[in-house]
Amino acid sequence: MSLIVQKFGGSSVSDAEGIKRVAKRVARTQAAGNEVVVVVSAMGDTTDELLDLAGQITASAPAREMDMLLSSGERISMSLLAMAINEEGATAQSFTGSQAGMITDAIHGKARIIDVSPHRIKTCIERGDIAIVAGFQGMTQDSNDVTTLGRGGSDTTAVALAAALDADVCEIYTDVDGVFTADPRVVPSAQKIDRISSEEMLELAASGAKILHLRCVEYARRFGVPLHVRSSFSTNEGTWVLPSPDDKIKIQEGEPLEQPIISGVAHDRSEAKVTILGVPDIPGKAAEIFGIVAGAHSNIDMIVQNVSTKGSGKTDISFTLPIVEGRDAIEALKAAQEQVGFENIDYDDQIGKLSLIGAGMRSNPGVSYKFFQALHDAGVNVDMISTSEIRISIVTHADLLDKAVRAVHAAFDLDGESNATIYGGTGR
Amino acid sequence: MSLIVQKFGGSSVSDAEGIKRVAKRVARTQAAGNEVVVVVSAMGDTTDELLDLAGQITASAPAREMDMLLSSGERISMSLLAMAINEEGATAQSFTGSQAGMITDAIHGKARIIDVSPHRIKTCIERGDIAIVAGFQGMTQDSNDVTTLGRGGSDTTAVALAAALDADVCEIYTDVDGVFTADPRVVPSAQKIDRISSEEMLELAASGAKILHLRCVEYARRFGVPLHVRSSFSTNEGTWVLPSPDDKIKIQEGEPLEQPIISGVAHDRSEAKVTILGVPDIPGKAAEIFGIVAGAHSNIDMIVQNVSTKGSGKTDISFTLPIVEGRDAIEALKAAQEQVGFENIDYDDQIGKLSLIGAGMRSNPGVSYKFFQALHDAGVNVDMISTSEIRISIVTHADLLDKAVRAVHAAFDLDGESNATIYGGTGR
Repeated sequence: MSLIVQKFGGSSVSDAEGIKRVAKRVARTQAAGNEVVVVVSAMGDTTDELLDLAGQITASAPAREMDMLLSSGERISMSLLAMAINEEGATAQSFTGSQAGMITDAIHGKARIIDVSPHRIKTCIERGDIAIVAGFQGMTQDSNDVTTLGRGGSDTTAVALAAALDADVCEIYTDVDGVFTADPRVVPSAQKIDRISSEEMLELAASGAKILHLRCVEYARRFGVPLHVRSSFSTNEGTWVLPSPDDKIKIQEGEPLEQPIISGVAHDRSEAKVTILGVPDIPGKAAEIFGIVAGAHSNIDMIVQNVSTKGSGKTDISFTLPIVEGRDAIEALKAAQEQVGFENIDYDDQIGKLSLIGAGMRSNPGVSYKFFQALHDAGVNVDMISTSEIRISIVTHADLLDKAVRAVHAAFDLDGESNATIYGGTGR
Repeated sequence: MSLIVQKFGGSSVSDAEGIKRVAKRVARTQAAGNEVVVVVSAMGDTTDELLDLAGQITASAPAREMDMLLSSGERISMSLLAMAINEEGATAQSFTGSQAGMITDAIHGKARIIDVSPHRIKTCIERGDIAIVAGFQGMTQDSNDVTTLGRGGSDTTAVALAAALDADVCEIYTDVDGVFTADPRVVPSAQKIDRISSEEMLELAASGAKILHLRCVEYARRFGVPLHVRSSFSTNEGTWVLPSPDDKIKIQEGEPLEQPIISGVAHDRSEAKVTILGVPDIPGKAAEIFGIVAGAHSNIDMIVQNVSTKGSGKTDISFTLPIVEGRDAIEALKAAQEQVGFENIDYDDQIGKLSLIGAGMRSNPGVSYKFFQALHDAGVNVDMISTSEIRISIVTHADLLDKAVRAVHAAFDLDGESNATIYGGTGR
């Protein structure tokens, strides 16, 4: 008997029919002899409707109240799903984030999980029932206030529960067949990846592949949770995201992980570039700037510090961050302009980021050359570069991004036969 | 400084405009130097929409999941109201039933409050903030499951909080100007009652006056909470429902309660009559029957046991109960037919109940005579009669009810100048 955590997003439960379809799938999984815990997001448009209501009331809602409001969405979807599963002849009970023991910090709107105590979930599945858990939400430790986890929150809930329950697999249901070597909407010849290491998936997610949120992959990697990203519209195998052997944790079915040299190409249009001009070139200034940005709860991605112009005593620092966090970060920086002593700020949200991911990169010195040659041949200029052991990322102008993705995907022989039918066949 | 609990129903917060209007009123109450706790129901149609969604999934939802679903409604209204109050420049925080310490039994869908521990609400108002509490919902003591209190639940939440916080008054906001001597839609000359004892209000509520739910009035009477029933569309004084002097509790402003002989006429179309035919006329059979009905969680109202037909050893027992509880009660009785040994069941939901209420009745022997004379003159036949010290109730055919109400209202000189404009002026 396996313990399986299944996560269904809002598009899978957008209406009564969707909820019934998910219920059948969950009931079948249990009937096949598994223990099942389900994590569910709010129904399709619920969150947007609630945000719209709040917008009619105020332009600046207190974050605590916004979390209280938004967390009602999963209560609706999870109780309806429990009803639908009962209608299938199985027994299900739904649990809020608080009831499921999802303890978070108190940063409303983007809370982080600090503990998971799923006593009630354990009792539920040990009794032979199916547990439905509200994704995206938790409760603060001290004040028992309701929090939400921010973007990708439901995926993170699912992985955190899977880790705490020592589940055999965490299945992330989505509207595509798995993780692809590139976004099939940009590269029609992109292929589904059957297996990928947590490490590579982490780089893919960090580089803008939308299918799994970075936090979820980080969590899965740290706790050795095998992920299975698959379509909620078919029973086909999707993409297995497996813990690396050196993460000293169980490998699904004990098989060795096959490592292709390059896993895929990811791209991201959700970031903006901030350049701080004329920063005093003295020790501690970069840390001071990044401290200010962190204080505004913004997540810095790529950083480039230009060499100090000789003799000026000044330098420029550029970094990227999510566009949605740009306003707060810029405000915080402007407020500290005098204290830090920089001259000006430049903000550009017309950028695109492209990343090439592959564990094989470490041992293949020709990768960088081929990568930049392909970009050059395609006429793509490069604004920023950042690398890790298994990733090369570049920033270019937003308009050039699609061309760049196709060029790099082709250069590394990732093109298969057109997968457009696979992708299009998912219907949504 | 007074501590005021204000309760607003779903029609007061049916949209963003309504929520803003309530927020202004709440903020003004605090600005006038009071501590304020607000209890709020779900927005207008929310509950119906959620029930409709559940109906698309299943015809027999588990009660626990139905409570989880319905309780999301108040989360939405209360967090929006907190936002709107913050927009008014005051500070408000919203609390679920569970956070507000509303502990109930585990009868989902019609849970009863067994304890109120409003530590967080106290802390909130002591800090100078306004506390918004979800009406209608609570949490079980043992399992921390979400419960709902059933009909009139938000009023009961408000009174229970007022009692636990030792509030000076519990204001129940409604869409009419207060409690009337009869339903103005039936008797246009009905007059607003300025003051009424808890005891009389209890009889009025039990007799079908819809403006306050029976449980709420019971609770207010037991804990000596002064109620003020008033319109959310005006600042006029409404009806004060004051604890009786012999309930040994504080009287608002120390004034003696003026007791008119007759307070008002209530009517009720929500009950059905059940007649159990051919019940063995031996001790304990009535208790057995009422035990079965109670086991189906139905609330019996009036009871009439006919005199045993001489020598038959059999008797008939009639009682009334809410129509919505009729099906469960009849099913439970039929299942026990052999055990109890009765011959048949008759069910009639085309009945109407009329009640005359007044503390003065106790010391005025002519009341009954005048009451039945008025009914007789109006051609109203009487099926069942039940009396208390301050109430006479009769059951007649549903079609005769309005005529009966007008006849009795006139006979006891309750008619004032037409209040139709007052009533109609509320607009909803």
